[in-house]
Amino acid sequence: MPELRRDPVIGRWVIISSERGRIPSDFGKESEDEEGKICSFCPGNEHLTPSEVLAYRKFGTQKDKPGWWVRVVPNKYPVLKVEDSPERSGEGMYDKMNGVGAHEVIIETPEHKKELSELDDKNVEDIIWAYRDRIMDLKRDIRFEYILIFKNKGTAAGASLVHPHSQLIALPMVPIRVQQEIQGAKQYYDYKQRCVFCDIIREELENEQRIVIENDDFVALCPFASRFPFEIWILPKKHDSQFEDLQKHEAVMLTQILKSIISKINNTLGEPPYNYLMHTSPLKETHLSHYHWHLEVMPKLTKVAGFEWGTGFYINPTSPEEAAKYLREIG
Amino acid sequence: MPELRRDPVIGRWVIISSERGRIPSDFGKESEDEEGKICSFCPGNEHLTPSEVLAYRKFGTQKDKPGWWVRVVPNKYPVLKVEDSPERSGEGMYDKMNGVGAHEVIIETPEHKKELSELDDKNVEDIIWAYRDRIMDLKRDIRFEYILIFKNKGTAAGASLVHPHSQLIALPMVPIRVQQEIQGAKQYYDYKQRCVFCDIIREELENEQRIVIENDDFVALCPFASRFPFEIWILPKKHDSQFEDLQKHEAVMLTQILKSIISKINNTLGEPPYNYLMHTSPLKETHLSHYHWHLEVMPKLTKVAGFEWGTGFYINPTSPEEAAKYLREIG
Repeated sequence: MPELRRDPVIGRWVIISSERGRIPSDFGKESEDEEGKICSFCPGNEHLTPSEVLAYRKFGTQKDKPGWWVRVVPNKYPVLKVEDSPERSGEGMYDKMNGVGAHEVIIETPEHKKELSELDDKNVEDIIWAYRDRIMDLKRDIRFEYILIFKNKGTAAGASLVHPHSQLIALPMVPIRVQQEIQGAKQYYDYKQRCVFCDIIREELENEQRIVIENDDFVALCPFASRFPFEIWILPKKHDSQFEDLQKHEAVMLTQILKSIISKINNTLGEPPYNYLMHTSPLKETHLSHYHWHLEVMPKLTKVAGFEWGTGFYINPTSPEEAAKYLREIG
Repeated sequence: MPELRRDPVIGRWVIISSERGRIPSDFGKESEDEEGKICSFCPGNEHLTPSEVLAYRKFGTQKDKPGWWVRVVPNKYPVLKVEDSPERSGEGMYDKMNGVGAHEVIIETPEHKKELSELDDKNVEDIIWAYRDRIMDLKRDIRFEYILIFKNKGTAAGASLVHPHSQLIALPMVPIRVQQEIQGAKQYYDYKQRCVFCDIIREELENEQRIVIENDDFVALCPFASRFPFEIWILPKKHDSQFEDLQKHEAVMLTQILKSIISKINNTLGEPPYNYLMHTSPLKETHLSHYHWHLEVMPKLTKVAGFEWGTGFYINPTSPEEAAKYLREIG
């Protein structure tokens, strides 16, 4: 069973994933799957993954067989496990908790090497619906407090497999990073009586210099205090604290803007590794006036080093104004 | 002038280092200095760095000439600059500040490729004294609130030069990461009336399973909630909130334990990239009962990816008990 442990000074939780147990000689060897190796995410190899929890597939095709275009399976090496209660206990002066949670993989396409921006609109829209369907299903499990959806693309961004996929992790607590963001947004709301993200959208659309692209329902911009060069946030124009409230029309518009952003990143920066992550409200806090869901996209171009670890500050060598300009100009 | 910008939601500052200005084609090219390239940190090339602010050198040798064994110079590409006042201003709804600070490089040895663990004890002790001397000097500048000392070793850990060096950054504010640590330690102290780090040292020395090594004045351990595999903290046994109070005997003991830890990391993990960073109290908060300076050493073995960015949690595949066992056993 993985173990959640709490740092007694800073209150940060870590997952000690003993089942992924790595010994010294395991490190430095990781690389994306080599040519010729069998890909467990490719059609025909469905038996190599745990049984699917969701698939959008052709009528008449069988579960765990080919015929799908988006397929969701439990992670074979989960960092957290579903079977158990989130019991807390002490160990000497320390605090720990059972590693309860869910860890799933969203296989985005049957094609082994197709970037999200190259997929059909319908396929990308269905990836988005798969995110939502899984959230709606897992939400019914009262042990879970938060669900994070994220994508690691490329070895340097933490991906261990090439085949296009995103991940979902359901957690038995609201993580500190999310708490801080919501707290910050709450402070702003208490002072101004306005959502800080709504204010950002208004200000940026007026100012224009950090806007990358917009459509009916969404705006993509390089945030004023970007941590990373070419960091991009995609925000819904209409205030809503939770992603899963997404309407059909918004799913179409999100598809459009997400494909365009990924394509702009690839064309501007030569297909860099990247991460994207959904920022949405905790499962049990619905319809918050002070929080606004969004997607953060971060190309992996620089390295986090001693300074960042020691301060929590970031050094960004490209201003968001410059970054937005490059991204706007290149298709 | 570099610019400090504050994220309006989470309150995190970033440094937009426009003078390091990077355009899309600059990324993906960084690598450590190639064979044959002239190293500006090697003796004889002193003219390639800004003029030294400190050097321990042979009697009779000249400033900015060979003859030194530890040399401190301003960073040629500083992320923050000394000339100016830390003025704050607004830009629309956002907050920013002049990028005032100091950024120095501690060149640890004249030898181009010698690891810290291979240097003479006297050399390493003098690196430690150089850290302290620079803190004592910069402390007199009342614009500075915090000084961070850190080392990036290896490209993956953020180093851009091979020649052994550490860095120092003086900041016009106490960074958020330091504030959080001190706040956490204060909460513990308010509740228990004891320093949390003193408690950790006591508990770990009794329990033994996470101890790597100890000597008269210091203990090195893998913390209970290690974020990274083989993460190690070196703590002084005697309570003190600030590194610069270091006594002569402690400098000798710190030299011994630091050399031994670096050597153990290299022997156990095959000379991995690593970072170490000094955690010490803010310049204007002296002799805190609730805070305890220490050095955190983090071999760079795993990648920070979407999950960590989204939650602030860390996934660690090697338990600290296992890591300490490996490190204890290997010299």
